[in-house]
Amino acid sequence: LLVCFLQMGWGDLGAFGEPSKETPNLDRMAAEGMLLLDFYAANPLCSPSRAALLTGRLPVRNGFYTTNAHARNAYTPQDIVGGIPDSELLLPELLKKAGYVNKIIGKWHLGHRPQFHPLKHGFDEWFGSPNCHFGPFDNRGLPNIPLYRDWEMIGRYYEDFQIDLKTGEANLTQLYLQEALEFISKQQASQQPFFLYWAIDATHAPVYASKAFLGTSQRGLYGDAVREIDDSVGKILGHLQKLGISENTFVFFTSDNGAALISAPKQGGSNGPFLCGKQTTFEGGVREPAIAWWPGHIPAGGVSHQLGSVMDLFSTSLSLAGLQPPGDRQIDGIDLSPALLQGQLLDRPIFYYRGNELMAVRVGLYKAHYWTWSNSWEEHSKGIDFCPGQNVSGVTTHTQEEHTKLPLLFHLGRDPGEKYPLSFASEEYQQAMERISPVVQQHKETLVPGVPQLNVCDKAVMVSSP
Amino acid sequence: LLVCFLQMGWGDLGAFGEPSKETPNLDRMAAEGMLLLDFYAANPLCSPSRAALLTGRLPVRNGFYTTNAHARNAYTPQDIVGGIPDSELLLPELLKKAGYVNKIIGKWHLGHRPQFHPLKHGFDEWFGSPNCHFGPFDNRGLPNIPLYRDWEMIGRYYEDFQIDLKTGEANLTQLYLQEALEFISKQQASQQPFFLYWAIDATHAPVYASKAFLGTSQRGLYGDAVREIDDSVGKILGHLQKLGISENTFVFFTSDNGAALISAPKQGGSNGPFLCGKQTTFEGGVREPAIAWWPGHIPAGGVSHQLGSVMDLFSTSLSLAGLQPPGDRQIDGIDLSPALLQGQLLDRPIFYYRGNELMAVRVGLYKAHYWTWSNSWEEHSKGIDFCPGQNVSGVTTHTQEEHTKLPLLFHLGRDPGEKYPLSFASEEYQQAMERISPVVQQHKETLVPGVPQLNVCDKAVMVSSP
Repeated sequence: LLVCFLQMGWGDLGAFGEPSKETPNLDRMAAEGMLLLDFYAANPLCSPSRAALLTGRLPVRNGFYTTNAHARNAYTPQDIVGGIPDSELLLPELLKKAGYVNKIIGKWHLGHRPQFHPLKHGFDEWFGSPNCHFGPFDNRGLPNIPLYRDWEMIGRYYEDFQIDLKTGEANLTQLYLQEALEFISKQQASQQPFFLYWAIDATHAPVYASKAFLGTSQRGLYGDAVREIDDSVGKILGHLQKLGISENTFVFFTSDNGAALISAPKQGGSNGPFLCGKQTTFEGGVREPAIAWWPGHIPAGGVSHQLGSVMDLFSTSLSLAGLQPPGDRQIDGIDLSPALLQGQLLDRPIFYYRGNELMAVRVGLYKAHYWTWSNSWEEHSKGIDFCPGQNVSGVTTHTQEEHTKLPLLFHLGRDPGEKYPLSFASEEYQQAMERISPVVQQHKETLVPGVPQLNVCDKAVMVSSP
Repeated sequence: LLVCFLQMGWGDLGAFGEPSKETPNLDRMAAEGMLLLDFYAANPLCSPSRAALLTGRLPVRNGFYTTNAHARNAYTPQDIVGGIPDSELLLPELLKKAGYVNKIIGKWHLGHRPQFHPLKHGFDEWFGSPNCHFGPFDNRGLPNIPLYRDWEMIGRYYEDFQIDLKTGEANLTQLYLQEALEFISKQQASQQPFFLYWAIDATHAPVYASKAFLGTSQRGLYGDAVREIDDSVGKILGHLQKLGISENTFVFFTSDNGAALISAPKQGGSNGPFLCGKQTTFEGGVREPAIAWWPGHIPAGGVSHQLGSVMDLFSTSLSLAGLQPPGDRQIDGIDLSPALLQGQLLDRPIFYYRGNELMAVRVGLYKAHYWTWSNSWEEHSKGIDFCPGQNVSGVTTHTQEEHTKLPLLFHLGRDPGEKYPLSFASEEYQQAMERISPVVQQHKETLVPGVPQLNVCDKAVMVSSP
């Protein structure tokens, strides 16, 4: 079981229509496996989406949200106090019961204080960092982000693990690749089942690539990073094949949120035909590239319209390992194996949250927005724009607009870019809302929000000592 | 030699990233052939682009433009007086010398008066119409558009060839498909080389599909039309294979202009990640899906970044037929066979015209805009919008903005959506313009415009009698 998880946009892969088609390995992965065209992050931001993947639960349930303001995005910077609660059951904790050895390589992002350490939450090995690789910082008030090998902090970004912000050079993806290859070899040799969570971050600003990839893309530094990841995925799949375990290894490639258009074009990717990007609940913020690969099990060249979510990787992985999901809590992920293995289509909604607010819901091809917001006028006036070059009147609003009485409705088949709201007076609107409204009502009535973990920042909790 | 030519956007094919991936036959054509990712129409409007394909020359040379106003798009409605001048040499005229039998199926669009009849310009057979299938008209002041079989008018759209505007049902694509299959069979039986110009129009508003395809797409009626065309192309390629002539037949699929976003989402397609649509010289108006297919000659699964144009089909076809292009006139098309057969990359610019004005030029990955214009405020206030949902400040201007002194420059690799103009002060800007300026200067100095054919309308020239 191998999950590649990073920040990339729907439109960043050749198989999903990136205009320069520079991802031959991922495109081959898709040709040998299955493309999921309607696959979603659990949140338009990294931390909550990662917590959702590992718990199978919406951030509003597992605590990865804030109530500090309405519909506010939040994640885990260095000074955040919270993290993944002990009460949450993570995928590796459960897989352990079936004898799996679990490793995370890369960005954890579920809290950096001692109690949140990944090895306390089911992982057996870790090579990577608790937070984003922002920096360099001053190392007095603000230390650089640490990297860990298992329990031990082995250094810091910029100081010990170089990232050259001028040239964009860093060999981190190569380190992460080597870690992955070695872990796979070791597990194959010891005949133990494994879960590898390859949570790399080269496409997250500050974007980086190693020397061999710098300048190789038509797309600039961001494209160089994509090419290096593409190359790495190719090497990992090739390694599985060489070791003869590809038919025993379920591999999934996807992203924690849409491309960050605020960082485009130099540090941000593409959301293809979709509206806006990271931080928003328009399709560009949460519709993700997704490829499932499992030779001999998932038919080659498959294309699925199954509505999927990163939370489904929790339930699907458990199912493939012969385990049951915990019965004492609401799990939002579903077992996708009927869709992946038998081409079935399972009816299920997608809930789009931003912080504590249910912004939108997708049922079938219809998406109803209960709230719309791109970003505030205040931010916008400073040049921060989550939807650069896009402006759909009444949709990409700079104030939070409530539509709970009369949701804005889009047909994502005819209008994937969310540009043409359906007429409220149309029969189609009435019929679609008759399907959607009960789903929303039931969700809201039964929702028990978790204790918000991302409400409190305190500089005293920063990882400042080795 | 078979050219499929219609109105479709870059983002309408699965192979180019359409979110619902509903074109399995065209995607297979791409997998068996070569995707051209940087292929352009010769104009953002149908008539001029079609005239350019058949003459290998820019509309400003072959006369398919107007000087009635600056940068004004023009085509051939029923009452236009002009058409393809006798002085122009068309691809079928030249292919005839090498023994080719030439047929056009579908929309001619190079003038409807007797002197412009396709059989007077090199074609041996015709099944189709001189103009777009607009209508129904009143048949008094404004007759419905006629359909011809060779010299004979055999009926009219709506009266004799039904298009149900309410349901979108019409079996015309099936008629055009049958014509194509029969022509190919006949040519194969008589062992004569052929040029089939399959110029269908189901994706041009009013969009239509036959009964078997209605309601089959996630994308509504437009998608139904795309699916029927996809199915038809699959049947044509299968027919070539069944007859054993696929290795002798060069097939090219492309479009005459970008998706018409004014008609979206019900009657218009998708330009994927590109800016604006039909009628504009932004990428969405002229960047086209393009697939070259020739088993045994063009390597399967190829992807080319060769800058190409529909005008290249003129020069490439002549080359493949062993003929020379005419030496007595400027030909804008180039022979793409080195790119298609040997994977070479030929350096050449792309000129973006709108009517009589050179709006922009692409050299390598750089595109310089000398004029920007989406559409007028007057049209815009009436709800006509060539860039719905898109608004790039200073770029998608509603007045004609001149930038000839200091062109707006984009890097189409980093920024395919033309959202981030390069800083005029940057070194990159200086260096790119040093490459582009001489190309533009030479083009302008040597340009001899043709006599504009699309200046005069006169109701007296409408085809009103059978």
